[in-house]
Amino acid sequence: MTAGPEEQSGLTALARGLSAPKGFVDASLAAPAPGAISLLGGIPAPVALPVEAIGRASEQLWQDPDAAVAGLQYAPARGSAALCDWIARWEGVDPSRIVVTNGGMHGLSLAVLTVVERGATVAVDDPVFPGFLWALEMSTTRTLPVPVLADGFDVEHLARRLAGGTRIAAAYTVPDFHNPAQVSLSASKRQALIELAERYGFYVIVDNPYRELRFGGQDQGVAAFHGSDRAIHVNTFTKTLGPGWRVGWLVLPEHLVAPVIRLRNRLDVHTSSVTQAVIERLLTDDVLWFDQVVRNATALYRERAGALIDALHEQLPGAFDIVAPEGGLFLWPRLTDDAVDPAALFRRAAAHGVLYQPGEFFAADPRQRSSARHLRFSYSDRTPDELREAVRRLALAF
Amino acid sequence: MTAGPEEQSGLTALARGLSAPKGFVDASLAAPAPGAISLLGGIPAPVALPVEAIGRASEQLWQDPDAAVAGLQYAPARGSAALCDWIARWEGVDPSRIVVTNGGMHGLSLAVLTVVERGATVAVDDPVFPGFLWALEMSTTRTLPVPVLADGFDVEHLARRLAGGTRIAAAYTVPDFHNPAQVSLSASKRQALIELAERYGFYVIVDNPYRELRFGGQDQGVAAFHGSDRAIHVNTFTKTLGPGWRVGWLVLPEHLVAPVIRLRNRLDVHTSSVTQAVIERLLTDDVLWFDQVVRNATALYRERAGALIDALHEQLPGAFDIVAPEGGLFLWPRLTDDAVDPAALFRRAAAHGVLYQPGEFFAADPRQRSSARHLRFSYSDRTPDELREAVRRLALAF
Repeated sequence: MTAGPEEQSGLTALARGLSAPKGFVDASLAAPAPGAISLLGGIPAPVALPVEAIGRASEQLWQDPDAAVAGLQYAPARGSAALCDWIARWEGVDPSRIVVTNGGMHGLSLAVLTVVERGATVAVDDPVFPGFLWALEMSTTRTLPVPVLADGFDVEHLARRLAGGTRIAAAYTVPDFHNPAQVSLSASKRQALIELAERYGFYVIVDNPYRELRFGGQDQGVAAFHGSDRAIHVNTFTKTLGPGWRVGWLVLPEHLVAPVIRLRNRLDVHTSSVTQAVIERLLTDDVLWFDQVVRNATALYRERAGALIDALHEQLPGAFDIVAPEGGLFLWPRLTDDAVDPAALFRRAAAHGVLYQPGEFFAADPRQRSSARHLRFSYSDRTPDELREAVRRLALAF
Repeated sequence: MTAGPEEQSGLTALARGLSAPKGFVDASLAAPAPGAISLLGGIPAPVALPVEAIGRASEQLWQDPDAAVAGLQYAPARGSAALCDWIARWEGVDPSRIVVTNGGMHGLSLAVLTVVERGATVAVDDPVFPGFLWALEMSTTRTLPVPVLADGFDVEHLARRLAGGTRIAAAYTVPDFHNPAQVSLSASKRQALIELAERYGFYVIVDNPYRELRFGGQDQGVAAFHGSDRAIHVNTFTKTLGPGWRVGWLVLPEHLVAPVIRLRNRLDVHTSSVTQAVIERLLTDDVLWFDQVVRNATALYRERAGALIDALHEQLPGAFDIVAPEGGLFLWPRLTDDAVDPAALFRRAAAHGVLYQPGEFFAADPRQRSSARHLRFSYSDRTPDELREAVRRLALAF
C-alpha cells in the first residue's frame, strides 16, 4: 500500500515516512467478519465496564450547573486538578508529576516526541506491542529488539549491547502482563533496567496499561520506575473504564513535566474536560469504587483465561505450550509441532470463523522467527462459551 | 523562562525548540484574578451552551445498552460514521473528506505536521491568532506576516511576495470573524487565495472556528476552499457546544485524508468515542437542534457586542476607532490617541480589575507596531452589565 505521487504531493518528510496500516494495526482497525469469533483486540469485556455508575455520574454532572459549565469550558493543559490528585495517590507520587493524556497511545507518542530524537535507536521488547512501533515512527524506525523472557525484558542482553558500544535514546517495555507475551518483569530486573538507564543516560518508556488487571502472582511494583529521573510511566483508564474515554496519564520525572505539557498543549490543548469531569466524579465520589471495578474485571478475566486454557487442553491436547497468565488480557500459546505452518493455520482458522493475531505481527526482529510460532488470543471480551466455541473452530482448522 | 540544563537533558530537538508559554498563551492558560472582569478568552457564554439537551442525550446514551458499549470501546480513527456524515452535510462535502479531531487546535497541529516541512516558511495573518504560531512551532518558526485588511488577508500582498520569489509551504488565515481583527475575507479574495495556492503549490490552512457565529453581514462562503485540492478547512464544536468537548473536524482534499489519519491514529488513536456519541446524538435526534443552538448563541453575542460598543462610545467617547463586528466573539478597537501608551493602559486596567488581551500579543511581525494600538476584547462570556462595568473600569484606567 505505497502512497501514489498525488498523495505524496506537498507532504512533509514526517507524513511521507509514516507507514500505512499493516499486520497488527490493520487487523486492529478492521471490522471483524460477521459471525466470526474475534480474539483480536485487547479490549475490556462490555460487562466489566461500569455503565450504570457512568450513567449516574453523567446525570449528576449535567444537573450540577457549576460542574456542567466547568465541564464544557477549557481546562488546564496538564489535566484537572482533582483527577491529577487521584491519579497521584493511586501511583504514590506527587501530583505535580502527573499529566493527563488521551489514553495510553497518546502517552507513548508524547514520550517518543519528547525524548526520542529523529533517527535515534530505541530498544524494544521482542515480541513487541506493534502499536508502539506505530507511534515510534513519529521519530524513528531504528530499533534494538530485546528478547522478552519468562521474567520479562532481557536486561542482561541490553546491558551487553550497551557495554559493546550501542547507544539508545530509550528502552520500551510492558512490565506487567506483557502484550503479547503475558509475562511480567521481575522486581530485580526493574531495578537493573533503571540502573542501566541512569548509567547510560537513556529513558525507560514503561507502558503499563494492564497493571491494574492482576488475578494471580505477586506484584513486582513500580517504585523503581517512580523513583528514577529516567522513567516515563504510561498508564490509562482504557482497560478498566473503557477505550472510548481516551483518558490516561503519564507519571513523569519532574524535569519532563513542562516539556511534555508544552508539546501536548500544542497538539490539542488538553484532554476533554467532559470525559475528565465524569471520570473524576466516578473516582472521587466513592473512594472504594475503582477498586471494586478492578476486582470485578479481574475475577471475570481470571475465569475467561481459565476457560480458554481448559478448552485448549481438552480440544487440542499437546498442540500448544501454554503458560497460565497472572493478569492482563492475553494468552500467548506456542505451537509445539514445528510441522504446523502458522500462516496456513491462521487462514484456515479465519475460514472456520475464529480470528486472532498471529505471532509474527509482534516480531520486533524480523530475522528472529520465534514469535511466529505463537498465537495471541485476547480472552477478555469473549464469554467462556464463546471461547470454547472459538477453540472448537480452531481445532477444526488444525 | 528559558529551560535549565536539567530540563533540557535528553530532550529531542523538537521538545527543546518549543517555547514556554508567554504573551497570549500564558494569559490564556492563567486563572484570572478574583474580582477581575475577564475579557480574555474567546469562549462561549455558559448560557449559550445547551446543558439541558446534553444532559438528556447523555442519559439516553447510558441507558441504551448497545450505544453505551459502543461509546466505551474503540472507534474508527477518522471519527464515527454518523458524526462524519452529519459534518459532511453541514459542510456540503463528501463524508470521505471529513476527519474528526480533538478540536480546532488539533486540526491546526495535524495540518502543520502534514504539510509544513521543518523550517519551511508559512504566510500568516498579521495580526495573527497566537495559538496557531504555538502549534506551528511543531514544524517551524519562519513566518511571512501578511496584513489583515478590512476585507481580510491581503492576498495581493502575498501574490507580490510570491512573484518576487518567496516560497511558502502554507498560508494561514481565519476567514470568518477573524481572531483578533473581527473582519471576514471577501468571497473574491477567497477565490484569489486559492488560485495562488494552486499556482504556487502551497496549502491554505483555513481556520474557521467562528464560522457559525454570524449575526450580521453576508456569508462569503466556503465553496472556494471546499472545491480545491489545496485547502485544509479546520472547524470545531468549541465555540458552539463548548471547548470542553475537544471535538472538531477537518475538511481535507482527498489526497490528504489517509496521511492525516495515519498521523492522528499514531498520536492518540481517535477522538473520544464518548464525546462523539453524545454530540452525534444531539445533532441527529432533531435535525433542527444545532441551528437553534447557533441562533440562540448569535442573538446573545449580537446583544453583547452591542452593549460593549455602546458602553465604549458612552464612557470613552473618541478613545477608540470601533468597527461593529458581523459575528464571532471579538472586538478589536484601535486607540485613536497616539499619546496613550498601551502597555501602561493594560497595567492600569488590570489594577482596576479589567483584563483583556493587549494587541501586541497578536503581532505577527514584531517590527510592525499597528497591532499594539489595538485591544482585543472578548465579549462573548460576559453579560451586558459586566461589559458596562468593565468599560467603567477601563475608563478609570485612561
